[in-house]
Amino acid sequence: MADHSALPLVILAEKFASLPGIGMKTAQRLAYYVMSMNEEDVRSFADALMNAKLNVHSCKCCQNLTERDICPICDDDQRDRSVICVVESPKDVSAFERTREYNGVYHVLHGLLSPMDGITPDRLRIKELLSRIAQGGVEEVIMATNPTVEGDATAMYVANLLKPLGVRVSRLAFGLPVGGILEYADEVTLFKALENRNDM
Amino acid sequence: MADHSALPLVILAEKFASLPGIGMKTAQRLAYYVMSMNEEDVRSFADALMNAKLNVHSCKCCQNLTERDICPICDDDQRDRSVICVVESPKDVSAFERTREYNGVYHVLHGLLSPMDGITPDRLRIKELLSRIAQGGVEEVIMATNPTVEGDATAMYVANLLKPLGVRVSRLAFGLPVGGILEYADEVTLFKALENRNDM
Repeated sequence: MADHSALPLVILAEKFASLPGIGMKTAQRLAYYVMSMNEEDVRSFADALMNAKLNVHSCKCCQNLTERDICPICDDDQRDRSVICVVESPKDVSAFERTREYNGVYHVLHGLLSPMDGITPDRLRIKELLSRIAQGGVEEVIMATNPTVEGDATAMYVANLLKPLGVRVSRLAFGLPVGGILEYADEVTLFKALENRNDM
Repeated sequence: MADHSALPLVILAEKFASLPGIGMKTAQRLAYYVMSMNEEDVRSFADALMNAKLNVHSCKCCQNLTERDICPICDDDQRDRSVICVVESPKDVSAFERTREYNGVYHVLHGLLSPMDGITPDRLRIKELLSRIAQGGVEEVIMATNPTVEGDATAMYVANLLKPLGVRVSRLAFGLPVGGILEYADEVTLFKALENRNDM
């Protein structure tokens, strides 16, 4: 917005534009939209921002985001605590929970190793994972990081730390996505699907 | 987000999703991003929301958004007050100002007539425009609403109200966009370009 625009609107647009995936045009549109909202709604938006930031923190056990000390999953007696699924971010926990098929617990690393970006092992919640396993009772750790360079490297790094502790370490299966079309699968996926083929 | 997610995060995601053009997936991503911002930045975002809503209002004269009583454009002695450019929204004022070629003043209608959506003439800032013209000194009103059904209908409606007042009412020229390619122009645009052709 040029200097003839109202300053508070320019500032608000800049705040929106600082969010990932929101460009300056969209940010301006959002700022104008906020002007058309009623005061009550704007206040509850502002409150939601502060409330999320102030009241949500990492679960003391699995490091997933929660407003309690221990998240509902870690606190659930029905979950199998002998299996830990290790994921990059809270979003991934939501993805697994949507399958309704996994009954173990989680551990959120809050990132992936990426030395180029300064993300070294001490920046991730790896020591929290090790101390959970040191407490005993864990039989299997499933490395469920993304099948990318960083995801694979992180899975490998963590697996190497865990193996001496005597737990089974597994990795998610790679292959054709269900409902996918073979013709459009990339070569690496197709190779993995072939390599990991199962008897019918 | 499912019910295992932290409630304040779910609420924040819903707030983001209530903004135009932001779906639930993007809203969740933004909510998680807010968690990674530092508290100071989140607070200044929340303050920017409230500040824009509480301190920005319509200019008493042209109805454009401003934090002052009279906006900088209406307040500028260098601008030609005998020409009023009538636009749909504050965004359009920004668009004209970017051309740096227009030296008149503006009038923002804050919408377009759309009886189907319940937007009748009394919902727009039309009477404010009429009272500006009644004060005298206005020679020309440029109807600069979008070349859409609603934009054209609004321009026609306002023009019919203004003509008895003895001011010249003009409409933006329609034709080929500069830099556009003739082959890709739609038929109506091409017809307008032909109809409004100029001598070279």
